[in-house]
Amino acid sequence: MAFSNWFSRLRSSYKPNKFIQNSFIHSKHTPQSRSLENTVIINSNNSNKQSWRSFLLPIVLAVSGGSFAFHLQKNASLCDAPNHQERVGRIGGKDSTKYVVKGTYKPVPSELIRELKAICQDNMTLDYDERYFHGKPQYSFHKAVNIPDVVVFPRSEDEVSKIVRSCNRHKVPIVPYGGATSIEGHTLSPNGGVCIDMTLMKHVKALHVEDMDVVVEPGIGWMELNEYLAPYGLFFPLDPGPGATIGGMYGTMRDNVINLKAVLADGEVVKTGSRARKSAAGYDLTRLMIGSEGTLGVITEVTLRLQKIPQHSIVAMCNFPTIKDAADVAIAAMLSGIQVSRVELLDEVQVKAVNIANGKDLPEFPTLMFEFIGTEAYTREQTLIVQKIVSEHSGSDFVFAEDAETKKELWKIRKEALYACLAMAPNFEAMTTDVCVPLSQLAGLISKSKEELDASSLLCMVIAHAGDGNFHTVILFDPADEEQRKEAERLNNFMVHAALSMDGTCTGEHGVGTGKVKYLEKELGVENLRAMKKIKAALDPNNIMNPGKLIPPHICF
Amino acid sequence: MAFSNWFSRLRSSYKPNKFIQNSFIHSKHTPQSRSLENTVIINSNNSNKQSWRSFLLPIVLAVSGGSFAFHLQKNASLCDAPNHQERVGRIGGKDSTKYVVKGTYKPVPSELIRELKAICQDNMTLDYDERYFHGKPQYSFHKAVNIPDVVVFPRSEDEVSKIVRSCNRHKVPIVPYGGATSIEGHTLSPNGGVCIDMTLMKHVKALHVEDMDVVVEPGIGWMELNEYLAPYGLFFPLDPGPGATIGGMYGTMRDNVINLKAVLADGEVVKTGSRARKSAAGYDLTRLMIGSEGTLGVITEVTLRLQKIPQHSIVAMCNFPTIKDAADVAIAAMLSGIQVSRVELLDEVQVKAVNIANGKDLPEFPTLMFEFIGTEAYTREQTLIVQKIVSEHSGSDFVFAEDAETKKELWKIRKEALYACLAMAPNFEAMTTDVCVPLSQLAGLISKSKEELDASSLLCMVIAHAGDGNFHTVILFDPADEEQRKEAERLNNFMVHAALSMDGTCTGEHGVGTGKVKYLEKELGVENLRAMKKIKAALDPNNIMNPGKLIPPHICF
Repeated sequence: MAFSNWFSRLRSSYKPNKFIQNSFIHSKHTPQSRSLENTVIINSNNSNKQSWRSFLLPIVLAVSGGSFAFHLQKNASLCDAPNHQERVGRIGGKDSTKYVVKGTYKPVPSELIRELKAICQDNMTLDYDERYFHGKPQYSFHKAVNIPDVVVFPRSEDEVSKIVRSCNRHKVPIVPYGGATSIEGHTLSPNGGVCIDMTLMKHVKALHVEDMDVVVEPGIGWMELNEYLAPYGLFFPLDPGPGATIGGMYGTMRDNVINLKAVLADGEVVKTGSRARKSAAGYDLTRLMIGSEGTLGVITEVTLRLQKIPQHSIVAMCNFPTIKDAADVAIAAMLSGIQVSRVELLDEVQVKAVNIANGKDLPEFPTLMFEFIGTEAYTREQTLIVQKIVSEHSGSDFVFAEDAETKKELWKIRKEALYACLAMAPNFEAMTTDVCVPLSQLAGLISKSKEELDASSLLCMVIAHAGDGNFHTVILFDPADEEQRKEAERLNNFMVHAALSMDGTCTGEHGVGTGKVKYLEKELGVENLRAMKKIKAALDPNNIMNPGKLIPPHICF
Repeated sequence: MAFSNWFSRLRSSYKPNKFIQNSFIHSKHTPQSRSLENTVIINSNNSNKQSWRSFLLPIVLAVSGGSFAFHLQKNASLCDAPNHQERVGRIGGKDSTKYVVKGTYKPVPSELIRELKAICQDNMTLDYDERYFHGKPQYSFHKAVNIPDVVVFPRSEDEVSKIVRSCNRHKVPIVPYGGATSIEGHTLSPNGGVCIDMTLMKHVKALHVEDMDVVVEPGIGWMELNEYLAPYGLFFPLDPGPGATIGGMYGTMRDNVINLKAVLADGEVVKTGSRARKSAAGYDLTRLMIGSEGTLGVITEVTLRLQKIPQHSIVAMCNFPTIKDAADVAIAAMLSGIQVSRVELLDEVQVKAVNIANGKDLPEFPTLMFEFIGTEAYTREQTLIVQKIVSEHSGSDFVFAEDAETKKELWKIRKEALYACLAMAPNFEAMTTDVCVPLSQLAGLISKSKEELDASSLLCMVIAHAGDGNFHTVILFDPADEEQRKEAERLNNFMVHAALSMDGTCTGEHGVGTGKVKYLEKELGVENLRAMKKIKAALDPNNIMNPGKLIPPHICF
C-alpha cells in the first residue's frame, strides 16, 4: 500500500532500537538464577512475568502456524512412530486466553524425570515460567500448541548422550534449543517432552590458527565467537540473526563446517569426519546433520572453517529508478567475474523505514549495498568495475566508504533494516518470507512480487541477498485482525509458489521447521520426502528427535 | 632409493606418453560395435584380446587388493543382506592363471536377463570380452575376484529406473560404471551381477549461462563438458583424471553440485533439490549421494555450478633446497589472505621423472607451481606477494608466465607428472597414495614420509595439492616381486596411519572403494560406520547397490 498514510499512522508508535537490543541481553540469563519450583501445566495468567518478554521483539503469536501445527498433529497419527493421546491444553502467560488449542501430549514418566535429575543435577527445571519461555516462539509468527514438560541444560557431550538415551528408552520427544532465533517454529514443543537447552555448552575447545579452523561447542553465539577470533585476525564468515548459536545454523552453514559431532537417538556419539579440509571418506554425514533441524541428532561439537579478516574492504551504496534495475545490476556484478563479497538489495519502502527508524535521510528509491574485500588495490578495482556497471543501468548517488567508521554506519542501515520494519508498528506482527531462485529469475520474481505487495492493503518491505538470489519480504499485519493475517499468508504463499515455478526454493536460509513443511512436496517431490523419512526412521526409529518438524508427517513408505 | 641407479636401469624402458594417451581413445568404443555373443564364465585365455588393454596404463593387477577383497567376502556373510553361496571361479583373459581366487557369486536368473533385454534391447551384452573389460580394474592395483554377468548401457533415466527395479526384485547386485578412472576398486564386481555402464547418457540437457549452471547426464566427461562450455566463457572448475565422467566424481565435487537426480534401489527417481544456489529445504541428499560411490543410488542427472573463465591468469614455478621449505611456502601463501587458485608441489624425484619423460631440463629440487586468477592487475599483485614469500623461504628460480602457450607448457609439467612416473617403468605397477591432513601438518607429514620413502628400496615420487593439504605419492614396484608389493603396501600404510595420527583422512579425493575400507573405522569410529550402514540399509534393504564397497561389511547394528 502507499506509504504516506502509514507514515502518519506509524511515526508516533516508533520505538528506538536500543530497547530491542537490550532485550537480547535480558534473554541471556542462565537457569541457575532461577528456582526449580515444580509446577504442572494449568491455566495460570503470568502476564506480568511475561510482559518484558513481549518486548523481546515486537512479534506476538499468530494463529496461522498454530493451526497448521495442529493440522500436522492430526495427520501425525497416520504414520508417525508413537501415537500420543490427544488432549485439550490451556497454556498460561501472555495471551493465555487465546491459547485454547488442541495438541497431542503424553505426560513425561516420573522415572524419566528422576533419571534426568541424576544426569543434570541442578541444570534442569520443571519451573513453569522457564518451560513456557522455552516453549513459546521467540521471533516467530507460528503458534505454540504446547510447552516442554522439562528443560535440561547439559554441560557436556556425555550428559547430552545420557539425556537422549533416557528419552529414547521412555520414547519421550526431544527438542534441541539454542539461540531460538529461528522463525519457522523449529523450537516449538507440540508434543511436550524434553527441551535440551544447549546454551551452557559454549566453550571454544581448540583454535588452529594455521589451519584457519576452530572447534567449538554448539551453544556459542556466532557474535561471541567472532569477538574471540578477532585478536587472531580470523572470523567466521556467516552473518545470521543476532543471538543465533553455531549448533542451530543451516543453509550456507554447510560450506563452513569441516566436521561435527552429534548424539543420535540411541545416545551414540558420531564424529562425522577428520579435520582435513578435503575428504572422500564415506558418506557426507556432516552435511546430512546440518539443516536436519534436530530431527536426526543433537549437535555437540562443530569444527568451523574460518577466514582471514580481509586486509581491506570497501562498502558501496547506490540507488535506482526501479527495483528491476537494481536486481539487474546485482546480477551483472555477480557475472562480471570479480568476487563480490556481498550484494544487498533494499526496496524504497524499506529505505523509508530505515530513514524513520534511524533518523536518516536516504533517497527513498530501490537501493543496492555492496561489500568488496581483498587487498587495497583489488577492492578499489572491484569498486570501479561495479561503479561502471551501475552507471550503465541508470543507477545514481554511488557512494563508497573505506574508513571503518563510515563503513560501519553504512552496514548499520542493512543490519538494522528488520528492526526498522518492526519498529514501524510495535503492536503489529511481521511475517518474514525467504524464497530463493536462480539468479536469472531474481529480477522477474521481485517485480512480480512487488506488484502483488504494492496492491495489498498491508505494509510490505523487501530485503534481498541479491548475490544469492535470496529474497525476503517483511509483511506487517495486525494479529488481532483475521483478515490481515490471511492476507499476509496469501502474500507469503504467492511468493513461495512463484519461486517454485522458477525452479527456486521455499527457503533460502530460514529452514523448514513447521512453517515450510507444507511446501516441500511441491519443491522436492514425494520420492525425496520418502527417502528423507526412511533416513529419519533408520536413525530415529522411535521418532523422538524434534518430531513434527521438517518432514511432512503424512509421508509414508 | 637414490635416483641415479634407477636412472640407468629405467631410461631404456621409457615409453612416450602419446601411446598411453591413445589407449584412452581405444577404450572409448561403444557396445554397438560388438556382437551379443552369449558366453559363460570359463577358463579361457584371451591374452591376445587383452594385450592392447595391458597398455591402457602400465598398471597390472596386484594380489593386495584382491586378497583384501576376498577378506571382505569372507566377512560379508556376517551381516550383509543376501548371502551368496561361495564358489571357486577361474576368470580368463590376461593373467588368467593368477586368477584362481575365491569370490562370492550367484548366477543371474535368466528371467532377469530377459527383463533387461526387454528394457535395453541391443544396449546390453553378455559378451565375455565386454564383461571382462568392465570387471577388471583399469588403472587400479586392486585385483578382480569376479566379473559382471551382464553389462547394460541405458540411454535414459527411465531405463536406469527399470533396470534397477528388476535387479532389486531379483536381489542381483548392481555396479554403476562411468569413466572407470577410479583406482580403489570402485568398479569391481566381486559378486558378479549387473554392470550399468552410463557412458551412453552423456547429453547436456540445459545450460543456464546467466545462472552459471549446467544440467548434464552423468556419463559426460569433464573434459568434453569444458570443450562444450568454452564458447560461453564458462568452465567446470574440477580437474580429476582424464576420462573421468561427471556422475562418478566425489570429494571436492560436493562444492560444485547444485542438485542431482538418482535412482534408488527400489527404482524410485529422487531429485535432491531446486536450482537455487542456496537452500535450507530438507536433508542435504545432494551431498549424501556424492561420494556414496554407487552404494545408495545410480546418479542419472547432475546440475553443476560453473565458473567464469578468468579474465587473466598467471602460472608461476620455483624450487627449494628442501621439501619442508616448499611445503612451508605453500602454507604461507594460503594464509597470506590472497586467493591462490592452485598450489602444486613436486619433489625432486618427480621433477627428475618429468625431465626424463618430457625431455625437460628442470632444476631437480622440490618444486612449487602456482596458478593465480582474476583481473590482470590482481593476478600480478598475487604473483608479487607470493614471490616475496618465496624469497623469504630461500626459494629460487622463480619464473612466471602470462601468455597462453607458456602457461600451457608449465602446467603440462604437472598434468603429465603421473604419466612421467609410469613411463619410468612400463612393466612396473604404481601404487598411488592419497592422504590429506590439516594444512599445519602437511610439512611434517611430507618430511616424515620422505624419510621413509627415501629409505625404501622402491622408487617413490611425491605430488601434493599443497593448498588443500592433500598429498600423493606414486610408488613403483614389480608386481612379479612379492617382496616389492609388500613394501609398497607398507609405505602406503605408513602414510595413512601417519595422516590419521595428524587428524587427517585416508583419502582426500580418490575415495574408499574396496582399497580404503580397512582404514575407515580408525578414521571415523565405529559409531559413524554404524550410522552409514543404517542409512544404506534403509535405502537399499537388499544390499544390491555396489555391495562390498565403502562400508566395511563386518559393521553390524
